[in-house]
Amino acid sequence: MAQKPKVVVTRALPQTAQRLLDAESGLEIVQWPSEQPCERPWLLEHSKDAAGILLMLTDTCDEKLLQAAGGNLKVIASFSVGTDHVERDALKKRNIRLGYTPTCLTDAVADLTVMLILMAQRVGGEAMRKVLAGEWPQMPWSPLLMTGPQIRSATVGFLGFGRIAQATLKRLLPFGISGAIYLTSKPGQPVRDDHFGLIKEAYIPIEPAKDWKQLASESDVVIVGCALTPSTKHFVNSEFFAHMRKLSVLINIARGPIVDTDALVKALEEGQIFGAGLDVVENEPNIAIHHPLLKQPRCVLVPHIGSATIETREQMATESVRNLLAGLKGEAMVNEVEL
Amino acid sequence: MAQKPKVVVTRALPQTAQRLLDAESGLEIVQWPSEQPCERPWLLEHSKDAAGILLMLTDTCDEKLLQAAGGNLKVIASFSVGTDHVERDALKKRNIRLGYTPTCLTDAVADLTVMLILMAQRVGGEAMRKVLAGEWPQMPWSPLLMTGPQIRSATVGFLGFGRIAQATLKRLLPFGISGAIYLTSKPGQPVRDDHFGLIKEAYIPIEPAKDWKQLASESDVVIVGCALTPSTKHFVNSEFFAHMRKLSVLINIARGPIVDTDALVKALEEGQIFGAGLDVVENEPNIAIHHPLLKQPRCVLVPHIGSATIETREQMATESVRNLLAGLKGEAMVNEVEL
Repeated sequence: MAQKPKVVVTRALPQTAQRLLDAESGLEIVQWPSEQPCERPWLLEHSKDAAGILLMLTDTCDEKLLQAAGGNLKVIASFSVGTDHVERDALKKRNIRLGYTPTCLTDAVADLTVMLILMAQRVGGEAMRKVLAGEWPQMPWSPLLMTGPQIRSATVGFLGFGRIAQATLKRLLPFGISGAIYLTSKPGQPVRDDHFGLIKEAYIPIEPAKDWKQLASESDVVIVGCALTPSTKHFVNSEFFAHMRKLSVLINIARGPIVDTDALVKALEEGQIFGAGLDVVENEPNIAIHHPLLKQPRCVLVPHIGSATIETREQMATESVRNLLAGLKGEAMVNEVEL
Repeated sequence: MAQKPKVVVTRALPQTAQRLLDAESGLEIVQWPSEQPCERPWLLEHSKDAAGILLMLTDTCDEKLLQAAGGNLKVIASFSVGTDHVERDALKKRNIRLGYTPTCLTDAVADLTVMLILMAQRVGGEAMRKVLAGEWPQMPWSPLLMTGPQIRSATVGFLGFGRIAQATLKRLLPFGISGAIYLTSKPGQPVRDDHFGLIKEAYIPIEPAKDWKQLASESDVVIVGCALTPSTKHFVNSEFFAHMRKLSVLINIARGPIVDTDALVKALEEGQIFGAGLDVVENEPNIAIHHPLLKQPRCVLVPHIGSATIETREQMATESVRNLLAGLKGEAMVNEVEL
């Protein structure tokens, strides 16, 4: 009898995904037992002779791991949208396939984007902190107490206008926004993909900006939703903030380094913009308690929870398992990286 | 030359409203100069012989004030949605008209409702607090870290289904909710007013619940949006929570006493529901730092900021001035209470 193919899984998985994996009786499953990250020596040791590895953002997939695994390895299934933790070339030269889970989190991230816009406009962070600090009893009502700009009639500007940005725009329409502008790598040109038919059926203007200055100066809400590349690093810098409206808010749900944090702190301090809502920030997660951003009352910062819904994480886990099994069987993955 | 009619204004007003008032050259305007509440002795003293008074929620309009004002008084213009601070009978017997500003805050409150739903589902309060406490660097990623239920496919239940509730539903449709149910004072009966044509054009079920048990047990999001009356006080109590879903959230944007706070704390502590998002709470604003609700990590509480947008407060102020002027001139008000 042939030996069962071995698969290594670097984390305890959510229920549905775990059941799907456990149902595969033809595999030898070696699994790190905790929801906390797997230790590197454990991974190197147990990967020996594995046919497949299901791993996380927190596990580096490099030459060393591939050598430890040896010649049986057919597939890496990464439970992640990004694949920066995987050395693609090393996989390619060994003909190892790479699966990932980029598509199922659109809704979860778009939902969080709307939450951050409203929190930034409606002074939500400061409001919560005052209540928690027991200050509510000493806050006499006054006409402009705790007020912020209303989203009705806002022009919403998108840096990057892909699937998540368009899903966000779709959600914002019934709030009564007056228009949307977007800037992509091809300024002034309409985007190719109209993922939800918004542009075709638009009853408000949805138009490409001719340059970043137009986007910065005409938007009441600026949403950073583009990829991080050498040309987008610190794209939102002090010059950008100088062009933004005094009552505008900046939202970043993409990658931290696209926004220059020092410039953001200065823009908030000097009232160049009204507020900010961030799911990501430079050097995350290393944001210590004395970080200057945390002193800004109008900045709402959450710890990269864009895709953190039970349903989405279950689906990402399930798709990772499907990718792993497809890789072993030589079948089509849900999403495969072209190496 | 006849003396100019005197009007008393109990607060400094936002700019647009102040300008509108100041443009009335035919009036003697006596105005409390600050954005903080007017002192009662000042109001009693200066109201003597006034023809009109523009006042706030924080000013009581009772027999004593009306007697202090005397027989010239024609109009009370209240900068507020509620009129609990005004003794209606005392006005009625003197034929004094009462203006208020109930209609212009629908959008602002509906926006805040969506913010509170997302904050409650996405563990937003806890997420912000952990970052502010400097805990992000010590939070290793795991598949279900900081996850909450997703709004996609949710059934949204409304206690009360008036204008604000329907404006909220309108905003929630593109989030992919699967249906809405509502409970009014006439259980099982369709609502009369379809403010935004949602029911007529519905592509998801929008239906009356037959009783509170159906609403509690079938909703993933319960939104309290009804008036406070003797029959709605503590309507959401321990029995109600016992029927709610474990992953559901409770939102209150109406009046604090509709929800039994002790029962809510217990429901959160025991995991009967997933979270809560509150703009109002019993005994507000007297929520001191040791209040048990503030110890609940899954409870997001903001200090009654539903209408707190710059635009809405400007509009409320402007409408108050219009009501005041209309009352003096015997013209139609923007909104008048039928006494």
